[in-house]
Amino acid sequence: MLLMAVPVPVWRGLLLALGFSLAAEGLYYLIRSLNRLCQQWPAQVLFFPAPVTCVRPLLLSSPGHCDCGLSHRESALSCLTRLLLSARHSLDVCVFTISSLELSSTVLVAHSRGVRVRVITDSDYMALAGSQVGSFRRAGIEVRHDQDTNYMHHKFALIDGLTLVTGSLNWSAQGIFGNKENVIIIKNTDIVKAFVEEFGQLWNEYDPAKYSFSPKK
Amino acid sequence: MLLMAVPVPVWRGLLLALGFSLAAEGLYYLIRSLNRLCQQWPAQVLFFPAPVTCVRPLLLSSPGHCDCGLSHRESALSCLTRLLLSARHSLDVCVFTISSLELSSTVLVAHSRGVRVRVITDSDYMALAGSQVGSFRRAGIEVRHDQDTNYMHHKFALIDGLTLVTGSLNWSAQGIFGNKENVIIIKNTDIVKAFVEEFGQLWNEYDPAKYSFSPKK
Repeated sequence: MLLMAVPVPVWRGLLLALGFSLAAEGLYYLIRSLNRLCQQWPAQVLFFPAPVTCVRPLLLSSPGHCDCGLSHRESALSCLTRLLLSARHSLDVCVFTISSLELSSTVLVAHSRGVRVRVITDSDYMALAGSQVGSFRRAGIEVRHDQDTNYMHHKFALIDGLTLVTGSLNWSAQGIFGNKENVIIIKNTDIVKAFVEEFGQLWNEYDPAKYSFSPKK
Repeated sequence: MLLMAVPVPVWRGLLLALGFSLAAEGLYYLIRSLNRLCQQWPAQVLFFPAPVTCVRPLLLSSPGHCDCGLSHRESALSCLTRLLLSARHSLDVCVFTISSLELSSTVLVAHSRGVRVRVITDSDYMALAGSQVGSFRRAGIEVRHDQDTNYMHHKFALIDGLTLVTGSLNWSAQGIFGNKENVIIIKNTDIVKAFVEEFGQLWNEYDPAKYSFSPKK
């Protein structure tokens, strides 16, 4: 009875306000979804070879200067270095060849900052001269590898389980400074999830407890 | 004066209809944008090694049967084959090693169907036994390559300039059936555009008219 006493124009006004509020909320939701989708886009493609530059200042714990004589300008290598250093919780590296001093130093710095680093690599290539796998193990980083004659040929890394860095680039000086290579940075959740699962599966498959001492075919 | 004669409720109704129509159009535009963005997502990730299957039926001009005794079920290889065969106008291949009989046959079939095929590869690896670059050239497909000691190490293909297929996979039997590899399929226009430009740049750089007969360092 009390409601009946409210005059019609007030009702109309209230309904209009409710309609507007719902429409605004719907619009906000749509724009937020669009924005989230846009943010998830592969943000960047890096093409190599990169110019020979020094990335040492990026690896220092406090802003510092380097007198090496090399250029310190931005490059595909500095972008990749910054990206790997942006890891706050975890850095999962799954790369065929790891011999680049720049990128292995980057991984060591992340580890020294308390980031949980896990490395999967190829057994044949980790045994070659120049491989930086030894320096990882000496620093206490767990490294796992295949144990067959085929290659663990992936070249990807996962930053905090949220950003995927993948492409044709091996982490070697020739790859970075010599070859034609590409690296894509992807934040799309479906794609990242697929690589997180692949990493987890390989990490399990290559558990040292499962290593055999007679080589498989 | 004529407008003034229109009664107020009619005006109100017209304005309401206009408002609704504008809101509906805005909503339609937003949903269409969302939908387009979703369609542009990397549709798929393929992980290798693939099980050993036969893809010959996919390469026939009319649906056919194959009695080879191998399995013909769907696999990462059959997905990749179907994708390459979906090219209608152009197929730009930029791959380090091309020795897989399955994938080179796929490229030859696309060429025989009138698709404009261009191939960029690595000069060192195209000279190795098993390379299928010779069969491309015999069929009239133009192949270009680097001319230095570094590698043309990309592993991507562009389908009709709209779909990018890229990853760690060389087009070799070991890559497909043996190694741990990944291939991502991307339709995002920005990413595809960057690779279309990279292909165009390398295609120009490797123009045979520019080849030198004394090897560069």
